[in-house]
Amino acid sequence: MGIMHGVVLNIEPDARIVDISHAVRSFDVLDGAFTIAQAYRYFPPGTVHVIVVDPGVGSERRPIVAETDDYVFVAPDNGVLTLVEARERRFTVRHIAAQRYFLRPVSQTFHGRDIFSPVAAWLAKGVAPADMGAEITDYVRLPIAGVQRIGEGQLCATVLKVDKFGNLITNLTEADLASASRIQIRIAGQLITRLCGSYAEGADGLFAIFGSSGYLEIAAKQDSAATKLGVREGEPVSVILGS
Amino acid sequence: MGIMHGVVLNIEPDARIVDISHAVRSFDVLDGAFTIAQAYRYFPPGTVHVIVVDPGVGSERRPIVAETDDYVFVAPDNGVLTLVEARERRFTVRHIAAQRYFLRPVSQTFHGRDIFSPVAAWLAKGVAPADMGAEITDYVRLPIAGVQRIGEGQLCATVLKVDKFGNLITNLTEADLASASRIQIRIAGQLITRLCGSYAEGADGLFAIFGSSGYLEIAAKQDSAATKLGVREGEPVSVILGS
Amino acid sequence: MGIMHGVVLNIEPDARIVDISHAVRSFDVLDGAFTIAQAYRYFPPGTVHVIVVDPGVGSERRPIVAETDDYVFVAPDNGVLTLVEARERRFTVRHIAAQRYFLRPVSQTFHGRDIFSPVAAWLAKGVAPADMGAEITDYVRLPIAGVQRIGEGQLCATVLKVDKFGNLITNLTEADLASASRIQIRIAGQLITRLCGSYAEGADGLFAIFGSSGYLEIAAKQDSAATKLGVREGEPVSVILGS
Repeated sequence: MGIMHGVVLNIEPDARIVDISHAVRSFDVLDGAFTIAQAYRYFPPGTVHVIVVDPGVGSERRPIVAETDDYVFVAPDNGVLTLVEARERRFTVRHIAAQRYFLRPVSQTFHGRDIFSPVAAWLAKGVAPADMGAEITDYVRLPIAGVQRIGEGQLCATVLKVDKFGNLITNLTEADLASASRIQIRIAGQLITRLCGSYAEGADGLFAIFGSSGYLEIAAKQDSAATKLGVREGEPVSVILGS
Repeated sequence: MGIMHGVVLNIEPDARIVDISHAVRSFDVLDGAFTIAQAYRYFPPGTVHVIVVDPGVGSERRPIVAETDDYVFVAPDNGVLTLVEARERRFTVRHIAAQRYFLRPVSQTFHGRDIFSPVAAWLAKGVAPADMGAEITDYVRLPIAGVQRIGEGQLCATVLKVDKFGNLITNLTEADLASASRIQIRIAGQLITRLCGSYAEGADGLFAIFGSSGYLEIAAKQDSAATKLGVREGEPVSVILGS
Repeated sequence: MGIMHGVVLNIEPDARIVDISHAVRSFDVLDGAFTIAQAYRYFPPGTVHVIVVDPGVGSERRPIVAETDDYVFVAPDNGVLTLVEARERRFTVRHIAAQRYFLRPVSQTFHGRDIFSPVAAWLAKGVAPADMGAEITDYVRLPIAGVQRIGEGQLCATVLKVDKFGNLITNLTEADLASASRIQIRIAGQLITRLCGSYAEGADGLFAIFGSSGYLEIAAKQDSAATKLGVREGEPVSVILGS
């Protein structure tokens, strides 16, 4: 929202502001978690990332500030940083309580404008995260489904997200498949055995690919795999690793 | 439109440019009026705001520049600044006639690029509004429906706008309801008596809330009130104030 | 994509970055060609334009850098610069092969982030296009349909694009019609004879207009000409020039 840029520039006129995405679905915390986790490391060290994806705005949801070695994050305490934490060595979370950094009055309905933006601007201006509030450890983490190993070389995975092209992003990483020289993927009754290096390489039909997300994706060339298979988030995916 | 940024940077390379919204509906002047009225005061004093929402582009519609104590506005003379004027002490309007500040040739179809953007850039660079043209007083004002008082503690209001979540933004302000300790709202045959402090607080069903717009909104928790009630802009709202 | 801004700022912190459009349809190279051709000359000389519209990402498609007198373009070699070349005196194309300017590792799926953005940032920082790779002449050009002259004062043209308002953008330029004092346009069985100076001027029904694209457009006042006529890209348009 452009109005948040205005709030930031009012406090820190030299801030460089980038909108990472406006395409996160309303109320969809997992989608937000995915978006920030894929993007944040491409920004200069010292960047303050602001995430506003919050069905619970105005409720008792705490605003938090999290620090990693290179970045600072301002977000609601709803688990939207779960996938960031999973990638970082250091992850320190504080409850933002220093109301002197908020816009007054704080509306009940637009914390992105009244709390997150001004706090981010003050952090970018040099205020220390420690000035924002006390460290907490009971912050919310999303119950992201893990990959289950079942017996000899068989994995139970799940579709984490459907992207706008209809590609199915699973929770399988390259590490999960590293031991296999070939794979058999079953989803919605279909068998997929082709692992392609690019979307262009994929011929007709369904194929698997490690996409820009860093996760294994099920895709269909210039088509929606989600529609073709009739599946969505949460769909189970089973994998047999061959040697 | 990014092309307007290019025009501005060509004239004033140091300009900071923020897109407040691209979500204003085509041809919807009232929606534009709402958007700018809610946003402009969050930007640094001295900001030049540009509004391009104009079904009449290329017609005899005049381009205008308006000044308030803290801001300058460049807009078509179609009433899009009506809600800004309502919030300001000082509001001086001029007809932009100084063609030396336009791009040449001026197309008939894209005044945002050829007139509004370059004029805004020159204003940001320090050209005085008075250099743009003579003051006028016959500029267009939208006939925004006012709240009617009917007898003892009864108000006739209207839905000004449906936002993207389906919330119904009425023309009722906090001042209108200040005297009441409880309220009864009737809309589309439904009775609403709950006035909530936040969207999260609202339980199931419909409720009223003073949203970030500053106006009373009719909302449904994580649902569209517009769809639930089957109403849209212009729907009458009646309110009984209880003591 | 905001992530591309992050990549650029990481390399050249002083870059000014503008998003020209996010509305280009996926996989639609012609739509991309149109968008950049209409926009690029409104930006300051020296601007580095980045175009990422590429169904063939990850395939053998070469990344290219093109130079004109005033601008530099980074794009896939898929013809998206065809309409830029048509407007320029000088157009020198190089195959980008200098992998030292890429992000590592280069993903197979997001060349906008891993190749185009960092290359553009280094070019903006002062690296010469010649450092990126050798000049090529066998780059891809789109087979943009030309206007055919048939006998005495009759033209066969085509609809290049339908814009978001439903206006039909043809391949007819002002030069094509310069000799005529009046015109008869036939499309989808309809006859159009009105050439208007602005969208507002157009009365009810269909009319022709030279839009901001620089091409003749078929439009309907505050309505979609595409829907009214039931046509889309590629629809033939015949014109009879009258004296």
